[in-house]
Amino acid sequence: MARDNSEKKPMFKRMALIGIGLIGSSISHAARRAGLVGETVCSALTPEERERATALGLATKAYADPADAVKGADLVILCTPVGAFKDIAEAIGPHLEKGAIVSDVGSVKGAAVRDIAPSIPEGVHFVPGHPIAGTEQSGPDAGFATLFDGRWCVLTPAPDADPEAVAKIEEFWRKLGSNVEVMTPEHHDMVLAITSHVPHLIAYNIVNTAAHLERVTDSEVIKFSAAGFRDFTRIAASDPVMWRDVFLNNKEAVLEMLGRFSEDLIQLQRAIRFGDGETLQRLFATARSIRRGIIQAGQDTAQPDFGRSAVKVREGTD
Amino acid sequence: MARDNSEKKPMFKRMALIGIGLIGSSISHAARRAGLVGETVCSALTPEERERATALGLATKAYADPADAVKGADLVILCTPVGAFKDIAEAIGPHLEKGAIVSDVGSVKGAAVRDIAPSIPEGVHFVPGHPIAGTEQSGPDAGFATLFDGRWCVLTPAPDADPEAVAKIEEFWRKLGSNVEVMTPEHHDMVLAITSHVPHLIAYNIVNTAAHLERVTDSEVIKFSAAGFRDFTRIAASDPVMWRDVFLNNKEAVLEMLGRFSEDLIQLQRAIRFGDGETLQRLFATARSIRRGIIQAGQDTAQPDFGRSAVKVREGTD
Repeated sequence: MARDNSEKKPMFKRMALIGIGLIGSSISHAARRAGLVGETVCSALTPEERERATALGLATKAYADPADAVKGADLVILCTPVGAFKDIAEAIGPHLEKGAIVSDVGSVKGAAVRDIAPSIPEGVHFVPGHPIAGTEQSGPDAGFATLFDGRWCVLTPAPDADPEAVAKIEEFWRKLGSNVEVMTPEHHDMVLAITSHVPHLIAYNIVNTAAHLERVTDSEVIKFSAAGFRDFTRIAASDPVMWRDVFLNNKEAVLEMLGRFSEDLIQLQRAIRFGDGETLQRLFATARSIRRGIIQAGQDTAQPDFGRSAVKVREGTD
Repeated sequence: MARDNSEKKPMFKRMALIGIGLIGSSISHAARRAGLVGETVCSALTPEERERATALGLATKAYADPADAVKGADLVILCTPVGAFKDIAEAIGPHLEKGAIVSDVGSVKGAAVRDIAPSIPEGVHFVPGHPIAGTEQSGPDAGFATLFDGRWCVLTPAPDADPEAVAKIEEFWRKLGSNVEVMTPEHHDMVLAITSHVPHLIAYNIVNTAAHLERVTDSEVIKFSAAGFRDFTRIAASDPVMWRDVFLNNKEAVLEMLGRFSEDLIQLQRAIRFGDGETLQRLFATARSIRRGIIQAGQDTAQPDFGRSAVKVREGTD
């Protein structure tokens, strides 16, 4: 999958990735695949991550201090959990190069703007972003070049943001393989609450409910998980710290969506209690049309995954 | 994958599958793969299904009336939604051959026993069963021979059931590729309520919640589904009639598990409202250990499916 891009002029001379987990490492792979940057450096919290980052060729240098990583960088992307944004922004602010673009990949955009924007100095451009892609795995070894292919990346620039900087980040994400959409941080947080945050919360929740039953053992839950539960544990295997920060930082939208979810669940619960099969069948049938829309939009395949075997092939990564 | 089993003596001379959807057609494929039956016939509700059943080689004959299908059969398996069991059992009862074994694949075993057992005549053996396997697809074309490989099949025979008949059905399922476990119908229904029924209900529910939002459009829900929602729509694409019957027939266990689910969800909701990150992170982290157990037990792979691409390989079916 690696192509020779030596003759193309890269979009950025030096990209600094602050945090090198699943998303940071995938950006590094995908940017190299498309020849978008001259050099990639990163910062990471632990010595182990820094070692993996350079060993895997994700970065030429891996720093402990984000302020060191951003020096001389014309593109800085924050790829840590959302809860770390404020401290990082304050630390890097004074060291950002004039004309540089700062972006992020946080799953909550209102909080990203609130925590990063105040530390961006005059002459530096801030274009918040969120690639809607991921897997349930984390860390520098989890990344791969094709993660963003065909997925969407949402940008939420301020109304007075520099149009050239926004266009450049848009081009960057398209070349990483994504489609790009621009919206307000508030709308993003509402859309993601229902398509991502609440689904993760209820997946975490049912796994915990199952773990605390007295009359059904853990080993029974595991043995018979192929009946549906399995797919929830997959989602619930996502990084706990990242998700803690999502819920702490998108409180209002998540609580609103959760309220609607619970209301709708009560309706189903009543239908079960009173034996109202007609209501159940009607509500179950409408779900199929949304599924069809997702397959038509190329966001999933119709392949019957629920019965998946151990044999799988993924497109090669770099 | 088709093997020559012509020299082996089949376990049953004639198998009658009542209903030929995903599970019925998969039993036909898997039984042929292992040379378990001399002949397979079936009954199905619609002319289209009957046509597909013979065209696909799932059955030598496909009848409209289940009573016709069971004549001369020494193995009869009910593969319809649970809600049809009572009428079918009453219809086939007088036509069952002495010494035959009747089984079923219903997802609710208390209701299966309640609805089938009274119609089983003296000298015919009833061994209820439930293969814990499936995909989100339905119909005679959805079946494949490897569906049961490495999955569990639960049998719930009555305490006074004929031990030879139970042993024979156990052997049959092992040869279809399954592991077999025996338990009471009540315990089965409790275990499946948490590993299958409630997960499906909340998957259906969140898809419907998303479909009824005013401030987030359907097309946004579809576009950004790769963030987690997608996997719920996959589960929610399962057959609406089958699932209606599951909830109508496993009411008590589902309502109990749903009550616990809602209690636990309220706890998470409170933690979000009051910014209790410690509780959130602790509850999220425990979910990972259950996931590890499922992978170790061979009920799923560690392959990062959440980021799946369109390229997939499934083991060949017959």
